[in-house]
Amino acid sequence: MRRILLLTEYDGTLFAGLQRQRQGLRTVQGELEKALPHIGALPKAVAAGRTDAGVHALAMPFHIDLASPIPPEKVPEALNRLLPEDLKVVAAREVAPDFHARKDALWRAYRYRVLLRPHPSPLLRHRVLWLRRPLDLKAMEEALPLLLGRHNFLGFAKEETREGVRELLEARLEVLEGEMGPEVRFYFKGRSFLRGQVRGMVGTLLEVGLGRRSPESVKAILETADRRLAGQSAPAAGLYFLEAAYPEEKLKPPGP
Amino acid sequence: MRRILLLTEYDGTLFAGLQRQRQGLRTVQGELEKALPHIGALPKAVAAGRTDAGVHALAMPFHIDLASPIPPEKVPEALNRLLPEDLKVVAAREVAPDFHARKDALWRAYRYRVLLRPHPSPLLRHRVLWLRRPLDLKAMEEALPLLLGRHNFLGFAKEETREGVRELLEARLEVLEGEMGPEVRFYFKGRSFLRGQVRGMVGTLLEVGLGRRSPESVKAILETADRRLAGQSAPAAGLYFLEAAYPEEKLKPPGP
Repeated sequence: MRRILLLTEYDGTLFAGLQRQRQGLRTVQGELEKALPHIGALPKAVAAGRTDAGVHALAMPFHIDLASPIPPEKVPEALNRLLPEDLKVVAAREVAPDFHARKDALWRAYRYRVLLRPHPSPLLRHRVLWLRRPLDLKAMEEALPLLLGRHNFLGFAKEETREGVRELLEARLEVLEGEMGPEVRFYFKGRSFLRGQVRGMVGTLLEVGLGRRSPESVKAILETADRRLAGQSAPAAGLYFLEAAYPEEKLKPPGP
Repeated sequence: MRRILLLTEYDGTLFAGLQRQRQGLRTVQGELEKALPHIGALPKAVAAGRTDAGVHALAMPFHIDLASPIPPEKVPEALNRLLPEDLKVVAAREVAPDFHARKDALWRAYRYRVLLRPHPSPLLRHRVLWLRRPLDLKAMEEALPLLLGRHNFLGFAKEETREGVRELLEARLEVLEGEMGPEVRFYFKGRSFLRGQVRGMVGTLLEVGLGRRSPESVKAILETADRRLAGQSAPAAGLYFLEAAYPEEKLKPPGP
């Protein structure tokens, strides 16, 4: 049995999120696990994180256990023949037998895309949040560093039961002239994130950008962890899981 | 009655092409014409060109005739409330009463996107042609200028009945590092195009890039107009109608 790390890209639009759910709901994990036995793998895939319905991923890691002698470099093509068009494996490698996609992740990175133009974009629907009004970038850039470091992020999150202290390592925004118009892209890198945290932070930052609250107002959300103080969650469609990082030694297959 | 020029963006994936067809087929023109009476316009929209099922557009011009007093700058929003998510009006202006979106176009421009990477991209499915093998850019760049100028392009087209002489004004390619991997993008600008011409040219150029034919082989297709000499048509999903240009005087509304 070999442990294999898969990187997956998916369009989250038609998935009821990443995590396997009760019968009838189409999930990323569910589609992947359905395919695994056909290539001689155990029917269990463990992801680096969860994404909600509508959230996309460029390189979401999963680990699986492979019993068949298929070489790792053949795994993407073998799985892709079985997977739907909106979920594909883009890389695979053998890793340490005790590698764990969720527990071993050193950090995770997300992007959030906002399209700023007078009219909605059919080609970017389900891919960005469309806003008609301009955003005050300076105000948002003032708020971003206030989120950095170790805080209780429950005020931005969806769940209220778990311990809410997390460490945010990077928080920035960039403006670029996309093909369909100007885009603001947020980038967040953290050791781990609470469920809904990125969308909660983005929604709050957008209220700062729209002049509806001050940059400093994010401080009170961190200090009180009170969800009622935060902005409305930004829609799922603009959010992308980018990547996760792992320690070098865990990425090495067992020696001969 | 005022004549209005609309620019439309659409995702061609779920349309049976641009041109209105018999009942039951969902077309770009059909969806637009259904919406027009609701804003006080005649139920007829004339496009700059046709696009096949699956082909996209960033700014496809249509002209319409507006009886209601709605100001042109309000037209996009008014129509967008009625249009489906995959078809939106992105600009509108009053033009000369005899403006004609098809007959007055000075030139049209198209793009074709090819994604080059080992595995397919869920986020770019229906948006690019995915190729696994590398392309010989130099060979394709040798072939491109041979297409320029006035030729009989019937050898690349789908139809065989019409007069096939057209003038190609620009033909180039660029390589860029896209977010999902390296892309080759073809750009074609011509006074007008035959039906299927761009996809026929791209399919032939890709065979040049894959080493299956010589750059010079495109000459014989132009000289003989023999469809059997050309490559297989490239798939619709990679093709984008970019824009059309019009004479300044036709873009002016009638004076007061």
